[in-house]
Amino acid sequence: MSIRIREIGKDFSLEPILQRAKQDLNDTLALVRPILEQVRDGGDKAVYELTQKFDKLRPEKLVYPVSEWKGNADPELVAALEKAKENIETFHKAQIPSDLDVKVSGNTLGIRYTPIESVTVYAPGGKALYPSTILMGVIPAKIAGVKHIQIVTPPQKDGIPDGLYAAAKIAGADSIVTVGGAQGIAAASYGTETISRSEFVIGPGNKFVTAAKVLLSGQGVIGIDSPAGPSEVLVIADIFANPNWVAADLLSQAEHGEDSAAILCTDSMEFAKKVSDEIDKALKERPKREAIKRASIENESWILVFPNLDECVNFSNLYAPEHLEIQTENYLELFKKIRHAGSVFLGPYSPVAMGDYISGTNHILPTAGGSRIFSSLGVLTFLKRVTYQEVTRDSLEKLYPYVKVLSEFEGLDEEHGNSVKVRLSQNGQP
Amino acid sequence: MSIRIREIGKDFSLEPILQRAKQDLNDTLALVRPILEQVRDGGDKAVYELTQKFDKLRPEKLVYPVSEWKGNADPELVAALEKAKENIETFHKAQIPSDLDVKVSGNTLGIRYTPIESVTVYAPGGKALYPSTILMGVIPAKIAGVKHIQIVTPPQKDGIPDGLYAAAKIAGADSIVTVGGAQGIAAASYGTETISRSEFVIGPGNKFVTAAKVLLSGQGVIGIDSPAGPSEVLVIADIFANPNWVAADLLSQAEHGEDSAAILCTDSMEFAKKVSDEIDKALKERPKREAIKRASIENESWILVFPNLDECVNFSNLYAPEHLEIQTENYLELFKKIRHAGSVFLGPYSPVAMGDYISGTNHILPTAGGSRIFSSLGVLTFLKRVTYQEVTRDSLEKLYPYVKVLSEFEGLDEEHGNSVKVRLSQNGQP
Repeated sequence: MSIRIREIGKDFSLEPILQRAKQDLNDTLALVRPILEQVRDGGDKAVYELTQKFDKLRPEKLVYPVSEWKGNADPELVAALEKAKENIETFHKAQIPSDLDVKVSGNTLGIRYTPIESVTVYAPGGKALYPSTILMGVIPAKIAGVKHIQIVTPPQKDGIPDGLYAAAKIAGADSIVTVGGAQGIAAASYGTETISRSEFVIGPGNKFVTAAKVLLSGQGVIGIDSPAGPSEVLVIADIFANPNWVAADLLSQAEHGEDSAAILCTDSMEFAKKVSDEIDKALKERPKREAIKRASIENESWILVFPNLDECVNFSNLYAPEHLEIQTENYLELFKKIRHAGSVFLGPYSPVAMGDYISGTNHILPTAGGSRIFSSLGVLTFLKRVTYQEVTRDSLEKLYPYVKVLSEFEGLDEEHGNSVKVRLSQNGQP
Repeated sequence: MSIRIREIGKDFSLEPILQRAKQDLNDTLALVRPILEQVRDGGDKAVYELTQKFDKLRPEKLVYPVSEWKGNADPELVAALEKAKENIETFHKAQIPSDLDVKVSGNTLGIRYTPIESVTVYAPGGKALYPSTILMGVIPAKIAGVKHIQIVTPPQKDGIPDGLYAAAKIAGADSIVTVGGAQGIAAASYGTETISRSEFVIGPGNKFVTAAKVLLSGQGVIGIDSPAGPSEVLVIADIFANPNWVAADLLSQAEHGEDSAAILCTDSMEFAKKVSDEIDKALKERPKREAIKRASIENESWILVFPNLDECVNFSNLYAPEHLEIQTENYLELFKKIRHAGSVFLGPYSPVAMGDYISGTNHILPTAGGSRIFSSLGVLTFLKRVTYQEVTRDSLEKLYPYVKVLSEFEGLDEEHGNSVKVRLSQNGQP
């Protein structure tokens, strides 16, 4: 079986593709709720019990301060992490916002950015280890000025791998907490005897992790980044693109998981068929993780042939992909029309893998259409805007008549109105 | 009964005050859930039924386009709304962010800000009408470039008051939807035959409104601003402040509702007693909404006497108030130490009422300690950051070795690694 190719016309509804594998969290929420309560009420003891139950192991402790790490990581890996850090830092330092100070009606109004104080970065670790996610979560928080940063990740049989320690150290995290899944999110959100409580919890994870984040943020226990669903890419390409490269990019998405979606939108049926052929060829030539790649390509992925590239862009804006590649002759022109996407990869030499690992953009991005309303992770994720004002007596006097009218209309004149008026009827300090 | 005064020492725990009237939404969530489902499945018909049930009335229609308004609002009210708009616009236009474009390792990386497309502003209308909230919600969305903006507000007996229409028109909203409570939030989130669906729903409301927003955002149906709880003020003042003015500001907060909290932190017991006396006097002299004010002052409010002003600031950073007033001799110095607050009011002439109505800052703010992690509403609330990159062939080649190492460690080399490598082994375009 190959990837499905469809020519877009009246008889084909795009709605099911737009809906995609939207995670229905309802069942998961019910499973996760008692886990959260168990951790909240039972602390470390509950965490050990749940780890025994779900991970079939008992770590010797739960919290590993990064400063205590005495191991050695592979120098090549360290060099790669250092290079990634350098690029991520350059791009994210450029995001530091300036405070604001404006005169309005004679008064000084402004905004000061202040950081969140404590953050947990969840790094998945079930199927594989993701030191890159540690860099992506921790470095922007560090740049924002977050004081306490811990990593929460599922426990591994032989303790914490040096590669994770190296990433945590290079990124600047305080500690690694070896608790996975919903119990990991709960421990970080409530705190236990040994695990610190964080006010903000970010990072991708499976549906148990996402359900725990959604529940705890709904209860006001923590703040979260946008909820994560399966990863996805949408590629807009025309006959000027290399079908082999486009196929490689689609497969690179499929490699993530069975539920990953890879969508190609093109204006050429000939090109569509070439890409499909390349995918078939690659699946034979590169058999690693074949079942995962086949499931994603055959069940979640599509090649959609539109009458023209503008209609590809329109579809992309509705789909609001996590990753968007534009590999067309006029890719910069098309990019101007993009309104919703997590991260955009422009031109022939910008595969998503560059952003996943090394170029410097963040790879923690809104999925499942979330980019219609949510941002990609960045320094601003960890900063909040505190507004302020200093009003002058002169301006207070000039603006009081308006406050009087508005507060009267809202039935709040006796005190709201009075708090301004009283400052005018008495002169100066006590 | 007067406001409670406490000298802060070893034997007094501040924890209950920090916890304050944190809304326990659990019971409300259970009540609200079936209402959401009823509206989702029943559309307009369900909305009419719920309005009959909760508001005891049947509006002739649900959606009132602002362009159809033929009425006249009081010219004084219009002038006040126009003045408020002018100041809000000036302050919020200064918040429009610049796009970003940086060179990193030879590649072009950047951020483009794009607006959310559809927004609902909920304006409460149970106890009173709040045209000021319409300005505060709509104007920043308009400046951000949001295309579709509707106001959802409880129905009134005699149709939509001209004052609300005037605010909606001046702010630039498309329409007013007369559905209150959880059913109003549901209708805006799912859409009905006559009511447009919004992707983002903001604005304060009672606990049913907040519960509906929390549930629907948890299910991924909408995005929301930070959940709203009871309003609150914390005032830091010393003997250089006017006790009569400070009392007026505390009462102005108490006027909002029985569950509002007004906290004064000071370093002087003498000053504390003076403020308490002024409150007692004012409650006798200004009897309007007396029961509400008394409930707030006697049950939710405190005067806390700390050994010095720095400890007042420390407490304020833990409390993370929605509104913070600093009325001390050195208020600008103390402000530098403030890390968490919704909006800060500096010096003797900046009562909260100025920000509520006219100065130009926003009055939709995080409550209940939310300012430790959430921002005040602003233009950035309605913009998202889309990151992008254009990688060069040269940089691809230089960075490939790092991608190879990292993708191998994560077990994603076959496709992720390959998507970079394939672009190096073939030269240029197809």
